[in-house]
Amino acid sequence: MTPFDSLVEMGKKEMKKETGLGLSYKKDENFGEWYSEVVVNSEMIEYYDISGCYILRPWTMTIWEIMHDFFDAEIKKMKVKTCYFPLFVSPGVLQRKDHIEGFAPEVAWVTKSGESELDIPIAIRPTSETVMYPYYSKWIRGHRDLPLKLNQWCNVVRWEFSHPTPFIRSREFLWQEGHTAFATKTEADAEVLDILELYRQIYEDYLAVPVIKGKKSELEKFAGGLYTTSVEAFIPNTGRGIQGATSHCLGQNFAEMFEIIFENEKGEKAMAWQNSWAYSTRTIDGSVLSLMPGVATQSGTVQVIVVPVPFKDADTQSILDACSDTVKKLTEAGFRVEADLRDNYSPGWKYSHWEMKGVPLRIEIGPKDLAKNQVRAARRDNSAKVDLPMANLVEQVRDMLDDIQKSLFNAAKEKRDACIKVAKTWDEFVEALGQKKMILAPWCDEEEVEKDVKTRTKGEMGAAKTLCSPFDQPELPEGTLCFASGKPAKKWSYWGRSY
Amino acid sequence: MTPFDSLVEMGKKEMKKETGLGLSYKKDENFGEWYSEVVVNSEMIEYYDISGCYILRPWTMTIWEIMHDFFDAEIKKMKVKTCYFPLFVSPGVLQRKDHIEGFAPEVAWVTKSGESELDIPIAIRPTSETVMYPYYSKWIRGHRDLPLKLNQWCNVVRWEFSHPTPFIRSREFLWQEGHTAFATKTEADAEVLDILELYRQIYEDYLAVPVIKGKKSELEKFAGGLYTTSVEAFIPNTGRGIQGATSHCLGQNFAEMFEIIFENEKGEKAMAWQNSWAYSTRTIDGSVLSLMPGVATQSGTVQVIVVPVPFKDADTQSILDACSDTVKKLTEAGFRVEADLRDNYSPGWKYSHWEMKGVPLRIEIGPKDLAKNQVRAARRDNSAKVDLPMANLVEQVRDMLDDIQKSLFNAAKEKRDACIKVAKTWDEFVEALGQKKMILAPWCDEEEVEKDVKTRTKGEMGAAKTLCSPFDQPELPEGTLCFASGKPAKKWSYWGRSY
Repeated sequence: MTPFDSLVEMGKKEMKKETGLGLSYKKDENFGEWYSEVVVNSEMIEYYDISGCYILRPWTMTIWEIMHDFFDAEIKKMKVKTCYFPLFVSPGVLQRKDHIEGFAPEVAWVTKSGESELDIPIAIRPTSETVMYPYYSKWIRGHRDLPLKLNQWCNVVRWEFSHPTPFIRSREFLWQEGHTAFATKTEADAEVLDILELYRQIYEDYLAVPVIKGKKSELEKFAGGLYTTSVEAFIPNTGRGIQGATSHCLGQNFAEMFEIIFENEKGEKAMAWQNSWAYSTRTIDGSVLSLMPGVATQSGTVQVIVVPVPFKDADTQSILDACSDTVKKLTEAGFRVEADLRDNYSPGWKYSHWEMKGVPLRIEIGPKDLAKNQVRAARRDNSAKVDLPMANLVEQVRDMLDDIQKSLFNAAKEKRDACIKVAKTWDEFVEALGQKKMILAPWCDEEEVEKDVKTRTKGEMGAAKTLCSPFDQPELPEGTLCFASGKPAKKWSYWGRSY
Repeated sequence: MTPFDSLVEMGKKEMKKETGLGLSYKKDENFGEWYSEVVVNSEMIEYYDISGCYILRPWTMTIWEIMHDFFDAEIKKMKVKTCYFPLFVSPGVLQRKDHIEGFAPEVAWVTKSGESELDIPIAIRPTSETVMYPYYSKWIRGHRDLPLKLNQWCNVVRWEFSHPTPFIRSREFLWQEGHTAFATKTEADAEVLDILELYRQIYEDYLAVPVIKGKKSELEKFAGGLYTTSVEAFIPNTGRGIQGATSHCLGQNFAEMFEIIFENEKGEKAMAWQNSWAYSTRTIDGSVLSLMPGVATQSGTVQVIVVPVPFKDADTQSILDACSDTVKKLTEAGFRVEADLRDNYSPGWKYSHWEMKGVPLRIEIGPKDLAKNQVRAARRDNSAKVDLPMANLVEQVRDMLDDIQKSLFNAAKEKRDACIKVAKTWDEFVEALGQKKMILAPWCDEEEVEKDVKTRTKGEMGAAKTLCSPFDQPELPEGTLCFASGKPAKKWSYWGRSY
């Protein structure tokens, strides 16, 4: 152990003792406890005095803003416009038909203002289809009013009663919800996939989380819609799938319900085709955090942290100046970079602190670096350290961050892929489920069979269900049978436990 | 009347008849009705089936996004970070002390989820001081934790019972709320003014609404704070002041209430100094709309609208191509520009339509323009028309938009200034109030006197109150007496009716 390493070691101990920043749980041993601890200790979340509500701290909100800026710019290129519909929903609108049945038990109701009872209770939106579409009916009259493409960034409330969990199952969350209407199904179908591709980019290119694009089963699709597509992630540590963002084709079901009718080019009455699509702060969930330590460089709040490493006999001010210069240089080059110049913590403490927060690249500057006109760069993902000459710092930092992003994604993909198991029979399926796998199985695509699988796999860990039928289908030789029913299989589908 | 003018005239009539886009009320005769009509017909607002809630359509949200992007970038330079605290507030937190008394009658309460009664009712935030500061107390321990500067973009709810009005008095609105904590009063005082200056820029430089910076009276300041500064606008048509954004110094009142205590550099316990500041969608209010027709170029959703003017014997496709080229050229130069290529409306109808929406500059392209390689530009503010050669289109459009912005602001300022009247005696004050003026009067700065003025001016139109005491104080000669009490005056203050 070099003197330097021992300094780091000291720093870590000091941190644990003095500030409780250390983690008591290990990711691989107790994921749930580790997760609860890491979201707080990394300053992403603060627990709040109402169950299921969480404070999203700047570390989380910066990730959210980065995803917002990317997605918002992309949909604006697609001519989607921003709107804002009210938080409150009158009961008549909410109680329209079967769509809302799925949400009814989770709806929060306002019944009082000040000391007065309201004449009729008012709901808080769990989603806005039924809020918005009466107005689509009003605004859409002729074919020239189509397509109508609106999106809003807002909060929604789903008062779930299952165990509240930060991000994954918070009762209030932030999201975008896009609601579009077209003259033809062809246009609607195309948009569903365009949006889904943007969601894949958010997960894979920004958050470095591998996802599978596919279609949900009839049982799992959006209530009232025609079909649902999604990106599905998987958490190896818990062996659970997690539904990412969803892009729904609503078909003409809502158009019929809300009379969204237009005069087409031939002067005939026609019904609009609709989509809705959403991703939320629930996206910053276990699948993302399962990657920590090592949050992705594209979405990281701070990509580079600069830490001065002063020594007794060295010129501390010059070191601090070099740190500030480095921050300036990298900031100007477009990186999100900060220096930790606090004088009441040791370098070792700072290393642990920023590791905990998942900063992918650390730059250390000590007297030797100063003398050689270089900095020392330490990667978060593989602990590799390398000296970088100041002369081409920007290029090298860019290369390293790109490489970290790729490595993180590849490592996560390898780990995820190792969880995938093909099961052709019920026995293979049950065995794989016991091993917490994500199971790819030939399926007859019948709703009753999915219900039956749920019943047969019920247990302490929760039942298995379909995650999605991947767009990227392996070959399905003629005569292949459904793993569960023994009937002819129609498609490959992913199954597993999920959040 | 040229044939062209008559075409325009025809278009206007057609529009009124066919689509009801014309306005039935005149701004100068019936401002209230005009306002209700213009917010709907310009597609800024759609009325909603819950009273006091409004749908903010893309035309409004683009203005909001422009103001958001400007302000958010500026406060990030000031090292303010983004956070998100929950919508819901537990009653214990809400009922803290006198601060909340001002909000209590307007608080909406959630008492049910699904079919179940909640154990305790939960409030919806009217503002977030008492939501956030318990956590400030937790996060702030030492002087190195200061300053703490957070801001959130969110919705808030104030269930007001006075006549709901789009923007001005909507029960739900969007806003930013900044909450900062400092070690010293000096830092807090400085930030209050820095933020207020950003608010002035939003109003004057973006929205072209002249405002007065000043300090609110003790009676009108933020409940629980130390002092409140604001930007105050005035609507000449109704003779009412309208409070713009506010920047509050909270002093140490909340720090005491929530125990926001830190160890200073000497190792002593000290109490934090706090500010809070906010502006909201209520900002896009009567003061802004009173400028219409002619929404400001800096905040306009569409700055330039391009309209083809085809004639029977002309090459329509070439004209449409020229329109698209113009849009492309101006978009690349950074303008917000659209072409209205619809073939089912006449040019005249389109002129009226986009005038109604307040687009400051219109470009018309007809066969003659095509032949001369030019376009015809029509200003919204003064109806001036000028031919612009395509060669230096970008520069000329930029100049024209700048000039329109300046002219709009100057005209609004002249109109506002014409409403200001100095009153040194009670008789002068009453006379000016009868003339719907914004009254600048010498005042003794006593709360009882302000209450007394309110009582004495009560009437159908509403009582007069202080708007602000302007930072830019005229000279106050020794011996000047208060217009209301006859006591020695301490300052000049603006008075008037307000929203």
